[in-house]
Order: sequence, then C-alpha cells, then structure tokens
Amino acid sequence: MNRIIKFRNPPTVVSSGSVVGKEEGKGPLKNEFDEIWDDVTFGEDSWEKAESTLQKKAIEKAIEKSRYVKEEIDLLFAGDLLNQCTGSTFGIRDLSIPFAGMYGACSTMALTLATASVFVASGAVKRAIAATSSHFCSSEKQFRYPLEYGGQRPPTAQRTCTAAGATLLEKSGGKIQIESVIFGRIQDLGITDANNMGAAMAPAAADTIHTFLSQTKTKPEDYDLILTGDLGFVGSELLIQLMQKDYDIDLSSVHDDCGKMMFYRKEQDVHAGGSGCGCSASILNSYVFRQISEYKLKKVLFVATGALLSPTSTMQGESVPSIAHGVLLKGV
Amino acid sequence: MNRIIKFRNPPTVVSSGSVVGKEEGKGPLKNEFDEIWDDVTFGEDSWEKAESTLQKKAIEKAIEKSRYVKEEIDLLFAGDLLNQCTGSTFGIRDLSIPFAGMYGACSTMALTLATASVFVASGAVKRAIAATSSHFCSSEKQFRYPLEYGGQRPPTAQRTCTAAGATLLEKSGGKIQIESVIFGRIQDLGITDANNMGAAMAPAAADTIHTFLSQTKTKPEDYDLILTGDLGFVGSELLIQLMQKDYDIDLSSVHDDCGKMMFYRKEQDVHAGGSGCGCSASILNSYVFRQISEYKLKKVLFVATGALLSPTSTMQGESVPSIAHGVLLKGV
Repeated sequence: MNRIIKFRNPPTVVSSGSVVGKEEGKGPLKNEFDEIWDDVTFGEDSWEKAESTLQKKAIEKAIEKSRYVKEEIDLLFAGDLLNQCTGSTFGIRDLSIPFAGMYGACSTMALTLATASVFVASGAVKRAIAATSSHFCSSEKQFRYPLEYGGQRPPTAQRTCTAAGATLLEKSGGKIQIESVIFGRIQDLGITDANNMGAAMAPAAADTIHTFLSQTKTKPEDYDLILTGDLGFVGSELLIQLMQKDYDIDLSSVHDDCGKMMFYRKEQDVHAGGSGCGCSASILNSYVFRQISEYKLKKVLFVATGALLSPTSTMQGESVPSIAHGVLLKGV
Repeated sequence: MNRIIKFRNPPTVVSSGSVVGKEEGKGPLKNEFDEIWDDVTFGEDSWEKAESTLQKKAIEKAIEKSRYVKEEIDLLFAGDLLNQCTGSTFGIRDLSIPFAGMYGACSTMALTLATASVFVASGAVKRAIAATSSHFCSSEKQFRYPLEYGGQRPPTAQRTCTAAGATLLEKSGGKIQIESVIFGRIQDLGITDANNMGAAMAPAAADTIHTFLSQTKTKPEDYDLILTGDLGFVGSELLIQLMQKDYDIDLSSVHDDCGKMMFYRKEQDVHAGGSGCGCSASILNSYVFRQISEYKLKKVLFVATGALLSPTSTMQGESVPSIAHGVLLKGV
C-alpha cells in the first residue's frame, strides 16, 4: 500500500508565527522566534488560559505576517495536550475561523500541517492554518505534579516547552512547498515509563521515516535535514540505533531533533531536552522555514512524534502508544 | 466567503459499523444496531478500556461488512471524549491502520466524516474510515462524578450513550454519497452550566445550519431530514426557537435529533435525552444510512454538535464554547 500522499500541485507556506516563553527565549534559537514572553502567564490568571493565549498569539502572528485578514482564512486545524484540547478551543474561540480540532499529542504540528496540506492542495479550501501549542506549567500540572510540589524529574524526562507555532498555507505564492505527507501508524513496544517519552516515541519515528524513505526510494543523503519532533537526547539516540539495527539505515549525518535544539542542555538544566507540541511547532515555524526560505536548506523531512497516553492510562498500567506523522518541505 | 466544500466527485459510504450498550439496546432503535452488548465492560477491567474496545468493535464491523481487509484502509480518522483521546488511541493501536486523531467532542462523527470525505474525494487516499465512540461510565467518571457516588442529575442533563460508529468511505461504489461538508465556527453565548449542554450547543447548530442553507440557497423543505447530533430535548427546542427568531427559518417539520431518538424518554428515565460522540455516530451508521440506502430518505443534512469544554475550564468559571460540523448525505 502506498502510504505517501504526494501533491501534484504542492501547497505553499505563505507565512508562519512562533511565540515562546522565557526559558525557550534563552536557548540557542532565541533570535529566531517572533515573540518571546518573559511573563509566562501571558497576562492570564490560569496556566490553561495562558496556553490558550499563547496559541492565539502564534495564529494571529501568522495572519499578521501574511497579506490576509482572519476573515479570509477558510479553515484552522489545531490541537494541544490539554484535556479536551482546551488550549486550542479557548484560544481560538474569538477568531471566528472555521475550526477542525485534532489530537496527536506532540505530533500535532505535523498532523495539522499534513491535514491542512491535503485540504489546500485539493482545492477544498483556499487558505488554511495549522497550529499547536504547549505550556510547561499547564502540562506539568496536568500530566505530572503541580509546580508548587517541586517534584524531581528523572534524567530521561524532557521539559515541555512553553511555545506555539502556526503555519498559513495557500495553493501557491509561498517560498516553501509541502511536497508530500505521510500519516503514521501507532507503534507500541510496551514502554510504561511516562518519564521516558523519547524512548516510547522513537519506534514511531523509525517506522514513519523508514516507510517514507523506502516508498520514495530515497536515502538519508537525499535530504538536507531529517528533523524529528521532540525525541530529545535519549530518544534521538534510540532512533539512530533503531534505524541502523532494524533497517540498516544510517540517519546520523542528516538527523536533528527539535527537542535537542530548543535549549542549551547543560546551562539550562533541561535533562533530556525539550518536548511538547509547541517545541517542534515553534522551531518549524521560525528557524526551519527561515532556513528553507533563505536557501540554506532545500529539502527537509519533518517528522513530529506523539505519545498517545493519558495520566489515566498510565495509572492503569498501560504502555505508551506512539505515532509519528511526516511532512516533506522543499524550497521553491 | 464560501464555507461549503462541495465535491465534484462525491465520495460514497461503502459500509458502516454500529455497536451500543445495554441501555441503548433497549431504545426505539434497538433493531438497527449491528451489535448490542449487555456487558458494558466489553470484557475489559476499566471503563476507559471498555470504551476503547467498543470503538474498535465498530471499526472492525465496518471493515467486516465491506469487501476489504484492514490492510486496505489507507487512513483512519477518529476521536472521543476521553482525556488525550485514549478511547481511540488504545482502541485502534493493534489495527495498524495509519491514524489521524481528531477532537470535536460530540461533533466528532461529523468532524471525522467531513475530513475523511475531503481526503477520499481528492484522491489523497483511496479508502478512509471515520469513527468515534463514547461510554456512559467513562464519561461520568471523567466529566462528572464516579458512578458509585450516585450523584443526582438535573432535568437538563443528557445521558452519555455507550455507543460507537464507524463509516468506511471510498471514491465510488456505495449507495450513499457525501455531497458536501461544512466545518463549524466556535460559538459561545456565555452558558456556564455544564449540565445543560443542549443549550450551549444549540447556537452552534443554528450557525452551521443557517450558513449551509443560505450558502446553498436551499430551504428546510429541500431536505428529507435535518438531523442534529445530540442537542437532546432541551437543546432541540432551543434550536427551533433560535432558527425562527434569528433567521426566520422554520426547521420544525424536517428536524430531528439523535439525542431524542436514542431512548424512550419516560420509560428509560434519561432526562433531556442522549449525548456523547457515540450517540449520533451509532445512529448515523445504522438507522440513517439504512433509511437512505432503502430510499426512505433521500437527502439528509447531518449536523453534529460538540461542547468544547473540559472539567478544568468549568471549574475555572469559563463558559462553554460549542461547534457544529455538517455533512450532506444523498442517496445514489
């Protein structure tokens, strides 16, 4: 079965928005983001509302940087990590843009972007936005412990980024094309440690990358960058090993990971790196798109990974099902 | 702006699956469903796992009733009400079908069906499944009180259905066509009573139905049925009033609602009717599709509504944002 959706008329990236919090704004990519907020409440009185505002800001930034107004956006695909995706729904409710909610955990940026690409490429809609967000404080509160508790995180744990990204797509006109997309299959190798998401997600990334390479008959060297979402330091190493062991493919020379890129590892004490939907979303919608626009990167395979667990499933002793969706980006 | 996605080559419904629990199996539609389970644990040891199994059964039933095997399904769109959509992710993880997670609360059946339709109509994929589920016990536990607490429900409360539905779409060959789809915009009139979802969702249904009618230049009489998802008895009455008052449109002669259809109101003591993603999903994928296949209904506008709240947003005093997505079905 052909798993890859290749576009005869590839949709293009018209504009993008990226907004991050204080800690992300001190990392190696600090000069790339549209906005850095030292106040991670974003002026709101709860962490959930802060995340909603963060996501809204990224969407508004993408629209602002285009020549369109929000009334000209046909459809918005968005999701986030919060229960019932309220980071998105409360963030965008005032925008009055038709909305399709998605859930892919940390794979959401690739999921929404891939879906929006199909809608725009087929002419179902003229313009669509793909967006997502995550917030360190709302995530810690929901998935782990309240911040005030001061729980210690193990070395394999990643830090959920306070970050959001949004991409505005249109049939033509942008400098970056979405050449093709691939939707992942759930992988579950039985990992039950909710503090080691990188390990749980690496098999999903390996499955999607291997399928993409084999079905397009390409090799890692054919890409300038194969960028995973947020495997972090532990998961990235596992991915390289898995690809070598299971498929005899050496990814090491072209692979990078948004979870590794977001922070200075030692100085910022982030353990295994960054994570959260907003991690890859904010990096894709700033640094990566800029690199492609400026012809520094030509062909980028973006593969965001998500761990499809919930605190309830973990408490019930369940393992962590994961998924990875992919998007092939190319400079025009 | 044209909000309606009309297909030049309308995709068709190849087959569908519907599985419900004991109480739903005693209602007026008991002879319509593929499976009725008296054991609402579905053989599992938690309510969340029960819901996952329920959703999986509906998907497997849809595949079984087609001439395909699961390896021939290109993409599965699914979602549910549980935190992080684990009803879907754990249900389908063993199927190994590429998966796009969606979140639309009780609007999910229309959301996944509309999205899958665009993918199939455009040729992005050959065959796709749209599915969703809900479970009375997992929902009560998560959104309200543990069942053991025996909390009393107010008269405006609806009963979350233990039910799931799945639709298998293909470019041609089925007896039912998806003519066009519309994605809703979030509406929020400030209702904060999480026990009155029907009232919160009625404005979303009104917005989508009005937009659909006005942009297609049609009247209620042009449809054999305008079927809302699960407004229940309270919300349905409000919808009729809103349509009359705001748009001078009389829906009453062609309108029905899945939340009203699922149970015998008095005998089954369900207060304001049924709700949950599975309510409209199981009714659409049984009774409604059968009525169209047998030429008893020709043209059905299916509009499922969702309340995009979370227990956290309610506790923080937030109102209930709602949405309604629509799908126009026609007999071939």
